[in-house]
Amino acid sequence: MRYKSYRKGAEVSYTFGAFPTMELLEAKPSIVEEIILSSSFPKAEMVYDIAKAHGIPVRVDDATIRRLADKGNVFVIGVFRTEMDPVEDGNHIVLHEISDMGNLGNICRTALALGVKDVVTIGNTCDIYHPKTVRASMGAIFRVRHSHYEEIEEYISAYPKREKFFFMLPESGSTPLPVVEAPAQWSIVFGNEGAGLPESFAKKGTAVRIPQSPEVDSLNLTTAVAIGLYQFTQKAGR
Amino acid sequence: MRYKSYRKGAEVSYTFGAFPTMELLEAKPSIVEEIILSSSFPKAEMVYDIAKAHGIPVRVDDATIRRLADKGNVFVIGVFRTEMDPVEDGNHIVLHEISDMGNLGNICRTALALGVKDVVTIGNTCDIYHPKTVRASMGAIFRVRHSHYEEIEEYISAYPKREKFFFMLPESGSTPLPVVEAPAQWSIVFGNEGAGLPESFAKKGTAVRIPQSPEVDSLNLTTAVAIGLYQFTQKAGR
Repeated sequence: MRYKSYRKGAEVSYTFGAFPTMELLEAKPSIVEEIILSSSFPKAEMVYDIAKAHGIPVRVDDATIRRLADKGNVFVIGVFRTEMDPVEDGNHIVLHEISDMGNLGNICRTALALGVKDVVTIGNTCDIYHPKTVRASMGAIFRVRHSHYEEIEEYISAYPKREKFFFMLPESGSTPLPVVEAPAQWSIVFGNEGAGLPESFAKKGTAVRIPQSPEVDSLNLTTAVAIGLYQFTQKAGR
Repeated sequence: MRYKSYRKGAEVSYTFGAFPTMELLEAKPSIVEEIILSSSFPKAEMVYDIAKAHGIPVRVDDATIRRLADKGNVFVIGVFRTEMDPVEDGNHIVLHEISDMGNLGNICRTALALGVKDVVTIGNTCDIYHPKTVRASMGAIFRVRHSHYEEIEEYISAYPKREKFFFMLPESGSTPLPVVEAPAQWSIVFGNEGAGLPESFAKKGTAVRIPQSPEVDSLNLTTAVAIGLYQFTQKAGR
């Protein structure tokens, strides 16, 4: 099979490099199509052993690696089907129209670290299957679940009972995060890197803000999400 | 004056781009040597007005911009003396041998947003004055104070009375962050992106850890610092 450079909506995507490829093999062997090695990859034995245990084909193909990998120092590629499990009815992190794949990957990693495995994207959001997202997640993408909705209202209709917390820009008249008490089940919703969430979202649930100095424009998105996740997973409701 | 590309230890460094240059002019006009504009910079009037109010020279010099700027889309450069104010005796964030300038800049921005203005670096740490750090901080660098110590022991001797909290890797036998109570005055200490803090540091103060899933290698440094800062500034001691 001749693989093409990844495009949104493709049936397969790729892990570039040893770390995310090993995470893929360990966490989600069922979606792996095959592993492609460079002839100079030093840890080939290890990959062969794990792949063989799951019946996954491995081949050496320098030309394909050169063609697919965006950078020169890639010695192993995992080919996987773009089939993440849909989210379950636990706590959700919801991302509305975020645009940076590095941020999306990083957020998946932070969410997983803090015990949240369900990631929802809404609207015109960057691609969770793109190799850049996968790389930024350090492979965490293979241990979280994901669902996408075109509109926030669709998501709200799908999960009507839970309390939803909308992280608004700091100047808005919302509840300061440190006094928020997390209910038994929650969704925390974050907006685009530049624009934040639309003002109208404040009425769709509980509007919260992270208190911060007026000397800074705003926290960056991954920082705000980390703080929100920490408050909800570690502090509130204890 | 013919400016050279920035090197560590140089007497002047640079802001590249409108946003950090405006932050420099607003927060620290006293350290600005001059402002250099591209002939195609659209907001020249605004820069002239602010610079004039502080007696700062402005000149148009496309050749110097091309020579100094690392990327093509820079239309304004601020030249500033590498003279940050030393830290005061408030709460400190202490960074031990961190190596990534993007992280250092980001951490300054997060610290400022959460109200911590004193940043200490220890040992072989990346350069706080480097244009990359400045850019990653979005100009927050001009609103924080900074001191550097070669050894952690020097820093501890300089501030012997305050409680110091060492953020250790999650597997270490340390206090979980959510139960930590911040004293009136504190320092929170973080280690290198890959290696973390040396094990021996756990005995130099209170060792803490951010509880996290074993499914993730570790939180990235800027995420860990954001969570630590949030706990200390927003939650504990209330």
